[in-house]
Amino acid sequence: MSLALDPAAQDLLFREARTANTFTDEPVTDEQVQAIYDLVKYGPTAFNQTPLRITLVRSPEARERLVKHMAEGNRPKTAAAPLVAILSADNEFHEELPALLPHFPQAKDMFFAERPVREQSALLNAALQAAYFIVGVRAAGLAAGPMTGLDFAGVQKEFLDADHTPLMVVNIGKPGEDAWFPRSPRLSFDEVVTTV
Amino acid sequence: MSLALDPAAQDLLFREARTANTFTDEPVTDEQVQAIYDLVKYGPTAFNQTPLRITLVRSPEARERLVKHMAEGNRPKTAAAPLVAILSADNEFHEELPALLPHFPQAKDMFFAERPVREQSALLNAALQAAYFIVGVRAAGLAAGPMTGLDFAGVQKEFLDADHTPLMVVNIGKPGEDAWFPRSPRLSFDEVVTTV
Repeated sequence: MSLALDPAAQDLLFREARTANTFTDEPVTDEQVQAIYDLVKYGPTAFNQTPLRITLVRSPEARERLVKHMAEGNRPKTAAAPLVAILSADNEFHEELPALLPHFPQAKDMFFAERPVREQSALLNAALQAAYFIVGVRAAGLAAGPMTGLDFAGVQKEFLDADHTPLMVVNIGKPGEDAWFPRSPRLSFDEVVTTV
Repeated sequence: MSLALDPAAQDLLFREARTANTFTDEPVTDEQVQAIYDLVKYGPTAFNQTPLRITLVRSPEARERLVKHMAEGNRPKTAAAPLVAILSADNEFHEELPALLPHFPQAKDMFFAERPVREQSALLNAALQAAYFIVGVRAAGLAAGPMTGLDFAGVQKEFLDADHTPLMVVNIGKPGEDAWFPRSPRLSFDEVVTTV
């Protein structure tokens, strides 16, 4: 069974792409991030809510502030990656909904008037977009190093506000020497998929 | 700025791919689902935990049981799609961790001994895998119709168990007539990305 997606693209995005732990010092430009965003912004979310927000950590002092909130094992790579991005969910995404969903602007008040509902929806949909973003980084010929080993409350306080929930930090760049462990196994189809 | 991913693949996965609301009656085979899984299983998750589980709703009686738990506006398309999949998060994913993470098997007990921690991690990481799955459906030349307008407790009780949290239901098939609304707008780069 062959996919419609050509094999080179399959390799680039999934089969040969790996989570990098080391990087070369080749910079990642704003133009590259813009190209990634302009591709993955089309990935679907519920009610087109697109709650993902991206904080690019570019200044040395911001990098230093971030590294201290990372788990110890993640600090060296977060300090060394050409670019580091904090991905967060905007819990007030509903303010943008009338513009984002012009054929159904009343969704804002019908479904998202309550903050806990928004938080749950923002978390799920920003996570979908985080995955699209990781795929997009790979589509740009770069390696992503997504990490959840960090002090989330610390990162939120240091870089975000009460309306933005951090999801993960992603190192971005060209893979360096010994960039990854051997590929770990995956569950078989029968372990994951059941039919009713 | 051009991406490494070729333009045809960009179109197939993001730019021209759309959330379909109608489908032709061309079947979606198990071989196609297997090919999708064999591609997207490589998408990264924290500690390689891969908590996504997929329930393919194939029998007419199971389809009928599912449709009644969907929001009214989602019922006709869920009833008509060639294939419908329930995506869920396995909150007991840690049992598989020693096999999935052979270089660090102690992660199971060091990080995931407590159920609330597992639930939070399973939700985020299964959502990442749900997005990889949507991309994979598109890679197979099919349209995905992900939906969260449904009675989650009802779907869980009807098809899953207390250890599996449903995330969404996805209609899968070739797009039919009038399959989608005009593309809704997206936020601009400057609305989503900030630099520190």
